[in-house]
Amino acid sequence: MRRLTTFLSLAALGVSMTGAFAQDKAIMGFKDPATELELEKKFDQQLKAENLDQWLKRMSSRPHHVGSPFDKDNADFMAAMFKSWGYEAEVVSYDVLFPTPKVRLLEMTGPSRFKAGLVEPALKEDATSGQTKEQLPVYNAYSADGDVTAELVYVNYGVPADYEELEKAGIDVKGKIVIAKYYGSWRGIKPKLAAEKGAIGCIIYSDPADDGYVQGDVYPEGPYRSEHGVQRGSVMDMPLYPGDPLTPGVGATKDAKRLDIKTAPTLTKIPVIPISYGDAKPLLDALGGPVAPASWRGGLPITYHIGPGPAKVHLKLEFNWDIKPAYNVIAKMKGSEFPDQWVIRGNHHDAWVNGAADPVSGMVALMEEARAVAELTKTGWKPKRTLVYCGWDAEEPGLIGSTEWAEDHAAELKEKAVAYINTDGNGRGFLFAGGSHTLEELVGEVAASVTDPQKGVTLAERRKAFDIVNSGNPDHKGFQISALGSGSDFTPFIQHLGVASLNVGFGGESGGGEYHSIYDSYDHYSRFQDPGMVYGVVLAQVCGRLTMRLANADILPFEFDHFYSTVATYADEVMKLPEQMREEADKINGMLKANYYDLAADPKQPNYKPLPPKEVPYLNFSPLQTSLATLKEKAATVEGLLKAGSIAPAKWAKVNELLYQSERTLIDESGLPRRDWFKHEIYAPGFYTGYGVKTLPGVREAIEQEEWAEAQEEIITLAATLDKFNSHLDKIIAAAK
Amino acid sequence: MRRLTTFLSLAALGVSMTGAFAQDKAIMGFKDPATELELEKKFDQQLKAENLDQWLKRMSSRPHHVGSPFDKDNADFMAAMFKSWGYEAEVVSYDVLFPTPKVRLLEMTGPSRFKAGLVEPALKEDATSGQTKEQLPVYNAYSADGDVTAELVYVNYGVPADYEELEKAGIDVKGKIVIAKYYGSWRGIKPKLAAEKGAIGCIIYSDPADDGYVQGDVYPEGPYRSEHGVQRGSVMDMPLYPGDPLTPGVGATKDAKRLDIKTAPTLTKIPVIPISYGDAKPLLDALGGPVAPASWRGGLPITYHIGPGPAKVHLKLEFNWDIKPAYNVIAKMKGSEFPDQWVIRGNHHDAWVNGAADPVSGMVALMEEARAVAELTKTGWKPKRTLVYCGWDAEEPGLIGSTEWAEDHAAELKEKAVAYINTDGNGRGFLFAGGSHTLEELVGEVAASVTDPQKGVTLAERRKAFDIVNSGNPDHKGFQISALGSGSDFTPFIQHLGVASLNVGFGGESGGGEYHSIYDSYDHYSRFQDPGMVYGVVLAQVCGRLTMRLANADILPFEFDHFYSTVATYADEVMKLPEQMREEADKINGMLKANYYDLAADPKQPNYKPLPPKEVPYLNFSPLQTSLATLKEKAATVEGLLKAGSIAPAKWAKVNELLYQSERTLIDESGLPRRDWFKHEIYAPGFYTGYGVKTLPGVREAIEQEEWAEAQEEIITLAATLDKFNSHLDKIIAAAK
Repeated sequence: MRRLTTFLSLAALGVSMTGAFAQDKAIMGFKDPATELELEKKFDQQLKAENLDQWLKRMSSRPHHVGSPFDKDNADFMAAMFKSWGYEAEVVSYDVLFPTPKVRLLEMTGPSRFKAGLVEPALKEDATSGQTKEQLPVYNAYSADGDVTAELVYVNYGVPADYEELEKAGIDVKGKIVIAKYYGSWRGIKPKLAAEKGAIGCIIYSDPADDGYVQGDVYPEGPYRSEHGVQRGSVMDMPLYPGDPLTPGVGATKDAKRLDIKTAPTLTKIPVIPISYGDAKPLLDALGGPVAPASWRGGLPITYHIGPGPAKVHLKLEFNWDIKPAYNVIAKMKGSEFPDQWVIRGNHHDAWVNGAADPVSGMVALMEEARAVAELTKTGWKPKRTLVYCGWDAEEPGLIGSTEWAEDHAAELKEKAVAYINTDGNGRGFLFAGGSHTLEELVGEVAASVTDPQKGVTLAERRKAFDIVNSGNPDHKGFQISALGSGSDFTPFIQHLGVASLNVGFGGESGGGEYHSIYDSYDHYSRFQDPGMVYGVVLAQVCGRLTMRLANADILPFEFDHFYSTVATYADEVMKLPEQMREEADKINGMLKANYYDLAADPKQPNYKPLPPKEVPYLNFSPLQTSLATLKEKAATVEGLLKAGSIAPAKWAKVNELLYQSERTLIDESGLPRRDWFKHEIYAPGFYTGYGVKTLPGVREAIEQEEWAEAQEEIITLAATLDKFNSHLDKIIAAAK
Repeated sequence: MRRLTTFLSLAALGVSMTGAFAQDKAIMGFKDPATELELEKKFDQQLKAENLDQWLKRMSSRPHHVGSPFDKDNADFMAAMFKSWGYEAEVVSYDVLFPTPKVRLLEMTGPSRFKAGLVEPALKEDATSGQTKEQLPVYNAYSADGDVTAELVYVNYGVPADYEELEKAGIDVKGKIVIAKYYGSWRGIKPKLAAEKGAIGCIIYSDPADDGYVQGDVYPEGPYRSEHGVQRGSVMDMPLYPGDPLTPGVGATKDAKRLDIKTAPTLTKIPVIPISYGDAKPLLDALGGPVAPASWRGGLPITYHIGPGPAKVHLKLEFNWDIKPAYNVIAKMKGSEFPDQWVIRGNHHDAWVNGAADPVSGMVALMEEARAVAELTKTGWKPKRTLVYCGWDAEEPGLIGSTEWAEDHAAELKEKAVAYINTDGNGRGFLFAGGSHTLEELVGEVAASVTDPQKGVTLAERRKAFDIVNSGNPDHKGFQISALGSGSDFTPFIQHLGVASLNVGFGGESGGGEYHSIYDSYDHYSRFQDPGMVYGVVLAQVCGRLTMRLANADILPFEFDHFYSTVATYADEVMKLPEQMREEADKINGMLKANYYDLAADPKQPNYKPLPPKEVPYLNFSPLQTSLATLKEKAATVEGLLKAGSIAPAKWAKVNELLYQSERTLIDESGLPRRDWFKHEIYAPGFYTGYGVKTLPGVREAIEQEEWAEAQEEIITLAATLDKFNSHLDKIIAAAK
């Protein structure tokens, strides 16, 4: 479900060609790289764009949301395909809460009357857009039932900074219905925050400035969102925990203990509905009150006002609160040497409607990868470690299929999982990768070994050019993987279980506005996103290499220098944060005291005077600094041992086990404050961003929220976690010597 | 005619309370400040908002463009008023070229057909908007006659940077008709540049993002430009020379020698017409070709494409190329001690239509100032120096009234003019001032002596608060006057004759979209711009003080420390410019060589790859540095003499004459390259900005245009001019000792 809108802000791919064995054409962890490189060549030769295209067309030919007939059909199809290629494949189902709409009514009752259509029209240019009987209507899953009438308030993106502006202007949303634009945060944040602020209903719409005509020609002329296109999507409180809302922490098996729906904490507190800009325009146009700040204005041909009112809105929503089966497809190929070490590769298969881009474009790349790997086994080659290919169901409503499976198999995964490699929707453009920085060097190596099909240079070189041109900085560092927040199925693996994970894909040249609408179709995808499935094949090349290198390495391609320097950067940021906040507070308090804001304000406009900032105390970062200094030293020692290439083969097994277990030590079993499902101390989705990552989340969010006592505690927890990691590095050193 | 859109970028008012006589309640140049302050108090008591309101209503009650009956009527009215107050007043007329439209046709001939309305509808909420018989239709004065048909190209604001983008994308406007948005430069630059690039026609429209619904509610609900509102305006090549196109450099008297219209260089080379966004939308919507870059997109509900075509446009324009009388009102009050020293105060009175804001709001403040000054003379007080109050005609077509008068009286003005103080349209908000930096301290003093009517602090304090809040920098320096480019009647005085000048007004809280439309009316002004004429009265207070202090000072309030430090800042900028260009060129050449732009480009989109920058040579700035060092020293010496307050009264007359003559030495009689009418070596309007200033224009523009030999010559010319100025300071020093 993740939308790659943050792509442009990702750091670049920077390749440093080092590995566990220092030699020409070295690849990390292989004593005999030539054999592995030969294998990858054969792998590439297997990949056929026609397969991706055929499967994409087949799997997106009907709506296939959770609980739909074609969802099950696709799962069975995939399982059969995996079996036909030689995998042990099964469809594993969980029983999960998946509400669908029963009543949807949105109308303006004054000053003029208007009833929202809430319908996406079929287009003759889009073959599947007319499958109205099977399509889920436009709605936000896990919205509360409700029947509310109130004045409307425009809240921009509905993120914390927007409510701060409203507070400055003296506008309260208590008892009102808010209308927020999509983007700026994960959508679930919008009703969550609105409810916290006292609003009784929430409307989310797609402004043409964000993915409509302002960006480019609209569908079917171009790829962007047309007047009546709507973004469906989940609004469950995923930053609390993802997965089935009724079974946090455990698999949603038939007889799992379930919460009462009334007490399930991740359901929204207020009714919320997504609408098109066609439906939003009359509502926004009827708002009075102050003109919205310049940065709040969207692309509609109106003057954006904040309200409240005079527009009055009636929102009535009722849902069928059904338990539905979620069908995960799990396909395994047993490892020849280490069957109890699993390299896991996943993509979801459920969609909001036909979902050609999201998720099938990624799913078919995974399938072709799995098929090609299976073909290689016919030549006698076998993976040393077990491969687990997964097609997740129920990702769209809240990463449910993957989360339930991960929770259900938690103990086994903690023991066996070497790494998890995720993909989701794919498109034409540039390689991006996020994940565990212990795998950054591996990704860089792979990026430097695959050719970009449009430019004929390596993926790493093209991405570097992109980052240099877009930053305007010719000294840009190059390839770095980003930290993972949330938004796709890596979350249960990395953030709940501490399995080193990666999330990989292509994008940046496949922009559009089809996301979560009926127009995310084969017709749209094959015209605008990746014609000829060219980048689908490249995705299979990249992920095939990552999977096979992890499966076959003599010494697993984990590495700790990049991890240290990345964490040191994060630590530097959080250590500077209080000082920056203090300076800003001093500045603003000085300007308030001098009365500058009042003097500069137009008496006929709202005075957006800052609220007086509170004093910022001094924190003791020394425990973190001490742990980091030790990490630096130990990471360098491990690096030296791995690079020397002198570890005796007899020690490899023990070293490998310790290498892939290292990420586990970054888990703090007591979890993050107020959301103990999230246990990773380095990476988490933000409590008020939803998908956007917060690194060193315990410390960073406590500081940002000005919870100073908690910040001090979290520094100690983080330092203790890094100490655990350091002790683990000691074990690797001992095992390698 | 100047639009105060650059207001927000002006530097702040920073007051340093020093003066020629250092004492409590000192004001620069007065041995007995108490008497002068008492006089100003009485002056303030005279000012009546009702007068401004009544005259505003009267003078904007009918259209009064050049050559219209009501233009003459207003001139006669003003002259009569000045006479009634005791001034020697006369209406001085010149015969100037003023074309008006005969044929106006703009239509799209394909792919669909559309005919532009070119009409602003009357509104029942606006009493004068229905005076269609007397209104000038929407047009651009000095457009060429023409009948052209061609494909359309969208060129954003139509400024040099935009054509550079087009060139990168491989789009040529040769033989095409361009459509450009208003703003981003003075409008005359758009057809000038389009013609230079080979276009055969030019359309200019008001995008709603710039002064329409994106900014706020449109008229009559709010002040902004509505669907069919059009900005009229001159497109003569004013950066070459302003004033009557047929009589450059001399007054357009009855028997002046005139150029043939066919050879007049300031007329546009191609036909050009202004339109509303209502008329622009179908044209823009019919464009194909690449989607415009993000920063080019406006506020219409369409995807902005560049073209060329398929939209094909037919533009036919014919004009009556008539000579019309321009009626300047000149009112004098003879100085009691120095009748041959003139303090000149001016505002124009002609409008494009009814012109309540532009120019009458400023004109009536000038009139009330003149009336109050005259009232003071009834108490026995007389100004020591002669006051000259001017109401200029024909400013809108090209500063014609003021330019012809200044050219006609050049010799007398060079001898007698102490300073020129200009105003134009006024509004609610913050004080701004631009002009000669030798008068910066005087303006600061005045700003600190007048109270802001909305906040009760001084104008200087309010402006400082504004600058601090908007820059976010609490250490912002405070009040500085900006450098003058062009756009109002100060230009002939400062840039042609070297008369120290100021341009003063209020704005920032009176934004709107009435500019140069039929909706610039009394109804609009009194509702949205300055209800109650509150800031009109404050403008009279400020300009009355400036005028009276210059008229009455014992030692004229000129000062050279601010001038030195300002010029030093400009010099620092131009000296850094080649280095910055060199670094940028090296960076871009490096990135081009490394092929980064091609690798980063989307093969399905235009590749906006930079054109290879040329090598930047090293310039010899030492002559400029030497002259500046001398200036610094001499300015300090003069400052010391003035501040000590020890100059003997017998020497005042000689010192004063030298003080006000100082600006004259900044004139280089040979003028700027390619436009010898502009002779000031410190301030000029940009050759490709039109209104926007270029400081040290000879050197700066040569560097910007990469004319390196010329840049080196201009450094020498500038240094020689500063040396003349330095010698003049020597004379002051000698006279004062």
